[in-house]
Amino acid sequence: MSEKVKLNDTVVLIDNSNKRYLLIIQDKTDKFKGIGVFNPTVLAGKQYGEECEIGSKKFWILKPSLQDKLLGMKRHAQIILPRDAAHIILNCSISSGQIVLEAGIGSGSLTIALANAVAPDGKVISYDNRKEFIDHAMKNLKIANLDGYVTTKFKDVTKGINETDLDAVIFDIPNPWDAVSHAWYALKAGGYFCTYSPLISQVEKTVKEIKKNKFIDVKTFENIQREMIVSDYGTRPSFEMLGHTGYLTFARKVL
Amino acid sequence: MSEKVKLNDTVVLIDNSNKRYLLIIQDKTDKFKGIGVFNPTVLAGKQYGEECEIGSKKFWILKPSLQDKLLGMKRHAQIILPRDAAHIILNCSISSGQIVLEAGIGSGSLTIALANAVAPDGKVISYDNRKEFIDHAMKNLKIANLDGYVTTKFKDVTKGINETDLDAVIFDIPNPWDAVSHAWYALKAGGYFCTYSPLISQVEKTVKEIKKNKFIDVKTFENIQREMIVSDYGTRPSFEMLGHTGYLTFARKVL
Amino acid sequence: MSEKVKLNDTVVLIDNSNKRYLLIIQDKTDKFKGIGVFNPTVLAGKQYGEECEIGSKKFWILKPSLQDKLLGMKRHAQIILPRDAAHIILNCSISSGQIVLEAGIGSGSLTIALANAVAPDGKVISYDNRKEFIDHAMKNLKIANLDGYVTTKFKDVTKGINETDLDAVIFDIPNPWDAVSHAWYALKAGGYFCTYSPLISQVEKTVKEIKKNKFIDVKTFENIQREMIVSDYGTRPSFEMLGHTGYLTFARKVL
Amino acid sequence: MSEKVKLNDTVVLIDNSNKRYLLIIQDKTDKFKGIGVFNPTVLAGKQYGEECEIGSKKFWILKPSLQDKLLGMKRHAQIILPRDAAHIILNCSISSGQIVLEAGIGSGSLTIALANAVAPDGKVISYDNRKEFIDHAMKNLKIANLDGYVTTKFKDVTKGINETDLDAVIFDIPNPWDAVSHAWYALKAGGYFCTYSPLISQVEKTVKEIKKNKFIDVKTFENIQREMIVSDYGTRPSFEMLGHTGYLTFARKVL
Repeated sequence: MSEKVKLNDTVVLIDNSNKRYLLIIQDKTDKFKGIGVFNPTVLAGKQYGEECEIGSKKFWILKPSLQDKLLGMKRHAQIILPRDAAHIILNCSISSGQIVLEAGIGSGSLTIALANAVAPDGKVISYDNRKEFIDHAMKNLKIANLDGYVTTKFKDVTKGINETDLDAVIFDIPNPWDAVSHAWYALKAGGYFCTYSPLISQVEKTVKEIKKNKFIDVKTFENIQREMIVSDYGTRPSFEMLGHTGYLTFARKVL
Repeated sequence: MSEKVKLNDTVVLIDNSNKRYLLIIQDKTDKFKGIGVFNPTVLAGKQYGEECEIGSKKFWILKPSLQDKLLGMKRHAQIILPRDAAHIILNCSISSGQIVLEAGIGSGSLTIALANAVAPDGKVISYDNRKEFIDHAMKNLKIANLDGYVTTKFKDVTKGINETDLDAVIFDIPNPWDAVSHAWYALKAGGYFCTYSPLISQVEKTVKEIKKNKFIDVKTFENIQREMIVSDYGTRPSFEMLGHTGYLTFARKVL
Repeated sequence: MSEKVKLNDTVVLIDNSNKRYLLIIQDKTDKFKGIGVFNPTVLAGKQYGEECEIGSKKFWILKPSLQDKLLGMKRHAQIILPRDAAHIILNCSISSGQIVLEAGIGSGSLTIALANAVAPDGKVISYDNRKEFIDHAMKNLKIANLDGYVTTKFKDVTKGINETDLDAVIFDIPNPWDAVSHAWYALKAGGYFCTYSPLISQVEKTVKEIKKNKFIDVKTFENIQREMIVSDYGTRPSFEMLGHTGYLTFARKVL
Repeated sequence: MSEKVKLNDTVVLIDNSNKRYLLIIQDKTDKFKGIGVFNPTVLAGKQYGEECEIGSKKFWILKPSLQDKLLGMKRHAQIILPRDAAHIILNCSISSGQIVLEAGIGSGSLTIALANAVAPDGKVISYDNRKEFIDHAMKNLKIANLDGYVTTKFKDVTKGINETDLDAVIFDIPNPWDAVSHAWYALKAGGYFCTYSPLISQVEKTVKEIKKNKFIDVKTFENIQREMIVSDYGTRPSFEMLGHTGYLTFARKVL
């Protein structure tokens, strides 16, 4: 029942302030940002869930969850936060076995969440016209052990989509309205279309274009998350709060 | 590519105001609430995604998505809304193949979302000490075609949990604090614990109990969803809004 | 110290569910909506703050506060709510003795709040190009005993403003952008300009026009109010909530 | 019509990033934080609303509004923000001529807003049991030119209130529940009681105590303010947002 850390495992180390560090148990002394210089093999044989000391710092060692993969990844650009990824996955009804397309790949945060949701039999196809973003995102996917569920395409999605019969198409690009009709053609009947945009004008242009195509159930949402601070003194909402991430627009293809 | 409606398919009919009706294509004339009296076999042979007329009303016929299953289910009690189910699934890192426990089953809305997330190889174990809720929820799960992934237990979860090594334990009960230590024992190392409570005092009692056990990463969130109305006149937040659903508290087991 | 109700006093009656009824202590039996048929003079001699019975219902009798005047007024159109009036008054630094202009008058709710803020030495000038709104609003102002601080003008404010040297100019009209330059001319240096608009596109057009004129400190806000339900069972945000009222844009004239 | 800056005027200088500097036009070369070393008399003769240069920086020179007084004041402690002061003033129906009591005085921010609202004939009585806070707040009130409307009392309000027949009593103290009955005695019939508390437990204890006294219309609110960023690129809510200030509880005395 109690599992031990083995060579080549990907593990997550979590410190007291809930910072996460993803690493592979390889026999190679290296400098790890936030941890220090050490050889990860010293962790082999530890029990998952145990507290361990590296240098003078203490960490919990765990098998990486989806959360760890999302929060521990290296960011190259503004990412879609877990709170919005959660809504995309549920509102688009993403399930194991589906084939979904996203554009662009960004740092791969949504890609990780989507890959996790379609595994083990589904597939994520990810378009981006920026080579360096694809490379960076695939590194994050590899560390997350989810790269096997992702196919990347070095291509501008507004130039067209080759795939058809897709379960969902999700855009995080500056001009989603330019690819709405491509999305319609690529989707199967009943398939979900979703765009993520920070600006109202982007939403307006996109919704206008969606209404020119055969989509139903067109809705736009904003998700606001408040953390509650529960301490011995009492409870209150956190003073710190992210005021805005982006608007999520959903639509569903019909014939 | 274009699939046709067959006998014994479960389909969803969606009307102009986005109301959903789940039904099975059976040769039995019946009265369907919101649709009227008809024999579902008249829909056999239709193409999924097509618009069809029943009586004088028009509907889109689609394969039911997770959204359809959640929004089309019959409610017996206050349900956990899709917005909160989305956060539970992502924050607890629920993935295909996992074994998760929930209590109570309520009307089965969270159960449907969890079953969808652990399919095809995982399992949801659902405790409830109210027989009629289990029966009602299982009907909803059957219509959603997800009953195969759910095992129910007619038992009060505060009396103890028999299962061990679980990936996640989620409570939607009035007194989650009474079962926190049971949850700890039932979880595997690194497993997620989550409670859903409408009241601050419930959160406070639960967090106090969580801190007595070996849990890390204890956080409480509230999700607020705003719909944006995008029309030809312009864009604004919806005047209608649900002011509160519940607080979600998350924690993670360590040794 | 304890004051008694006298003939010709305007009083407010508040029932158990906090509904308010404004009326004048006149010797005239009449039907009062929500109270019933009675002669208000039966209340003369009561002590302010006392509970009194009319028919079978119980009411607290009080001198009307600004709140009572706002919540007890008769609505003819969508009104600016107290929460937004509060922000307009503070952000425009409305104070006793000032001369402020508003357009349009609507049902007079903002007019009441402004008149209360500039009294006893200031003045509210209220433009509206709908005669029936002016008449209706002035009835509300009379009941609120604030009509002496208000001058109305039956005029479309986009056609021009005759007044100059104003402390503040506030627009609740569908096309505020058409009168921005009029507002600039009418304001004194340092005076405040404010618009209330439900739609983003209205805000955008107005801000664009504001930036063409000599204004500083241009800001747009949205106020969200949550009621907390505090009961013996515990505390939670109210399930009922107004999702949106309007956006408030503020600017300040310089030379 | 166009007024000039004179000796002994209190003026506000506002820079390009909307920072405010309150100062008096006195013949004394001094160092002013954020402006530099200069003699304020160089500003005499300028026209209010004009742009002027001091050193290499540009400022608009204006007569100080209530906003300027609140935003330009020196903070000694956590202050009640203008957004909450606005709601206190409107929900307590604070008007010119009233006599209101507050405790504690803090840095004097609410005191400034209250003094401005009761002027020219009303009075604010401010209790605080910390001498240095009273001194600091009175300096802010003097700069705001509102000290004439304020009487301070070096006293712990939970020990009792001597005044009676007050229009409103407002508490920003850690333990408002300990002075609820004092507030009831000090208020006139129909007078408003208000408390400002960051924590839910403070609200709960206070409401419990309020219900033991003869108060009606007991309500608790939270005000959330979102700034909208309107630029040439489009419009969106600000990413930066204050997640929480405090809960406002209101009640009204009856006999």
